[in-house]
Amino acid sequence: MDLATLRLAKNEERRLRGGHLWIYSNEVDKNISPLANFEPGQQVRVESAQGKSLGVAYVNPHSLICARMLDSADKVFGKARLKQRIQSALALREQLFSEPCYRMVYGDSDFLPGLIVDRFGPHLSVQLNTAGMDAMRNIIIETLVELLQPESILLRNDASVRKLEGLPEEVVEAFGNCPEDVELIENGVRFIAPLKSGQKTGWFYDQRPNRAWLRELAPGKKVLDVFSYVGSFGVQAAAFGASEVWCCDASGLALDKAHENAALNGKADIFNTLEGDAFAALKQLKEEGQQFDVIIVDPPAFIKRKKDQKEGILAYRRINELAMRLLGDHGYLISASCSMHMPREELLDIIRASSRHIDRRAQILAEGMQGPDHPVHPAIPETRYLKAVLSRVYR
Amino acid sequence: MDLATLRLAKNEERRLRGGHLWIYSNEVDKNISPLANFEPGQQVRVESAQGKSLGVAYVNPHSLICARMLDSADKVFGKARLKQRIQSALALREQLFSEPCYRMVYGDSDFLPGLIVDRFGPHLSVQLNTAGMDAMRNIIIETLVELLQPESILLRNDASVRKLEGLPEEVVEAFGNCPEDVELIENGVRFIAPLKSGQKTGWFYDQRPNRAWLRELAPGKKVLDVFSYVGSFGVQAAAFGASEVWCCDASGLALDKAHENAALNGKADIFNTLEGDAFAALKQLKEEGQQFDVIIVDPPAFIKRKKDQKEGILAYRRINELAMRLLGDHGYLISASCSMHMPREELLDIIRASSRHIDRRAQILAEGMQGPDHPVHPAIPETRYLKAVLSRVYR
Repeated sequence: MDLATLRLAKNEERRLRGGHLWIYSNEVDKNISPLANFEPGQQVRVESAQGKSLGVAYVNPHSLICARMLDSADKVFGKARLKQRIQSALALREQLFSEPCYRMVYGDSDFLPGLIVDRFGPHLSVQLNTAGMDAMRNIIIETLVELLQPESILLRNDASVRKLEGLPEEVVEAFGNCPEDVELIENGVRFIAPLKSGQKTGWFYDQRPNRAWLRELAPGKKVLDVFSYVGSFGVQAAAFGASEVWCCDASGLALDKAHENAALNGKADIFNTLEGDAFAALKQLKEEGQQFDVIIVDPPAFIKRKKDQKEGILAYRRINELAMRLLGDHGYLISASCSMHMPREELLDIIRASSRHIDRRAQILAEGMQGPDHPVHPAIPETRYLKAVLSRVYR
Repeated sequence: MDLATLRLAKNEERRLRGGHLWIYSNEVDKNISPLANFEPGQQVRVESAQGKSLGVAYVNPHSLICARMLDSADKVFGKARLKQRIQSALALREQLFSEPCYRMVYGDSDFLPGLIVDRFGPHLSVQLNTAGMDAMRNIIIETLVELLQPESILLRNDASVRKLEGLPEEVVEAFGNCPEDVELIENGVRFIAPLKSGQKTGWFYDQRPNRAWLRELAPGKKVLDVFSYVGSFGVQAAAFGASEVWCCDASGLALDKAHENAALNGKADIFNTLEGDAFAALKQLKEEGQQFDVIIVDPPAFIKRKKDQKEGILAYRRINELAMRLLGDHGYLISASCSMHMPREELLDIIRASSRHIDRRAQILAEGMQGPDHPVHPAIPETRYLKAVLSRVYR
């Protein structure tokens, strides 16, 4: 099969030579290779303005990122190479984790831009986030079946990024019988996650190493998990020996699941939930005179776009200061941000400024990031998004 | 006891209000409080240009950092408060570690500027790095004896920073019988560290969490530890199940200790050493056609002063590229830098650039820092110095 050619404008190959995988539409020589000539998802040979081949990419003429590199060899990227990439990604996870519960493929960072595969033992939750990956849907499912013999594969193709690619938002049972809920084990703790109805793929594996901090911190302690979702931090704190755990979330359904998860680990008796807006809930707890030994603040992205940065940072500052006020002396705070536009240093400074503002002293004990099943692509800053800061606060 | 007053110049209290502990000599109002009026190590009441008290500090008129804050209350900082601070620092370590082997006091970050205490079970290795801490020598030793009933306390007052403070460089047996070597356990692995003759306090606890990565990476693998010192990474790799370990260091004495440490863990048979300059050794291994599955590059600070930054970054780049060439397909590289002047992002970029330069692909699996017994003071960037990047490199 012959590949059509996508010609870059002058000097626009530099970022790719540095290892990046994305091509923006303004980097294409549109006289030589008009984007309108390509179908969404079509594979092309990419070449520099000098006509030197850079490899194979897939194109989406409707997207700002109009192409993403698949390989440096300029042949069709077919099932054989797809399988190699997925095997390589799987080998990493099998090296690192004792349970088959992890993000198995993480897009660009596993050199498979647009493909997300989360594994829950025999069940897979997949996102095809670009037209290029959507076009490979069949060979992706075939490959996953061959490699893993799963019980089910669910396509959680309901991420809003698909809209930008001109793709329908849908949830599709692509293989086997997909259950409503799946079981998983993280840091040795059992969970049920809502595969079909949950956020994203149903579970956020990215915080695994930061949740593991609770193994040392939680025993005997009173713990508050703010923005708890289905209790991923809070239930681990309970399982690791906390004396009392409170989970706070705006979603009653998520809190029901959190309760189930606590019960699954024999910890229903020390487990409490608080439904509502986090800012209001923290104020209420303060008014009630409550005090905690360990508090986790893991909000949804407060900064979705660069232009929201200033306001978002203020929101992080407010919620962290509210949390800090609820900490007893020598309390521990885990403060996370999954906003790519929240600089790591800014989150540290929020801990500093919040502690000073309420006249306490803070020590930073650890700075965490997304777990190793969410590798960072060193040339793509967008893949390095999660920050978590563990601090100890005293008077 | 009355405290003399150190008056700051206009607006120079701002950094202190932000939580910082240091006062530079050019921030003092020298008309009102000439530095020559103070003795090295003397405690003073610090006040703003408006005469508002900021707390108690100790002074060293001969040092660029002429004073360091001890507390916000402007009373003499005596044994009672010293004991509280050390107890607070100890409580953190007892919370986090199951063995009594850790940095027990980490200077500014434990709000005891100038004091370092490393604990090796019943033996303590102490650095008094400022005139202010040196002046408290007796109450520090008394307090440590009261809190821990140690067998020995050694003052490793041979750090070059003491020269800047006008203090003698000396090693003093301050309490009990100080052995030549001490035993310690880190990540469950046993070591002997040279207490009296080793670098700094004899052991670098700061890399503990980054060494723990080897638990998942080392089993069955051929491992190379470059700049191994007494084998802290390499011996842990062996203990975690590596099939073969090579330690490389310029010091034959350090390698002898590394061998002892391998033997202590029953791993002498798979343990090898290579004495010499790291750059030359890596080239030699390459010429011999050697290949490794896991390589650790943990050099001494290549950037000691800001002005060495450019050259130092090049040295990091060179050593990492040499190491990467020795990695087999899908190999793992742990690359560390303890240079405060090496930005974290720069080290990531070195991984990116090195891998591109030899036509490989890298994934960043984790970014580590100093362990939680070396907390970061959020207002003092100098306390946030250690970087470690775990990457996976494939063709």
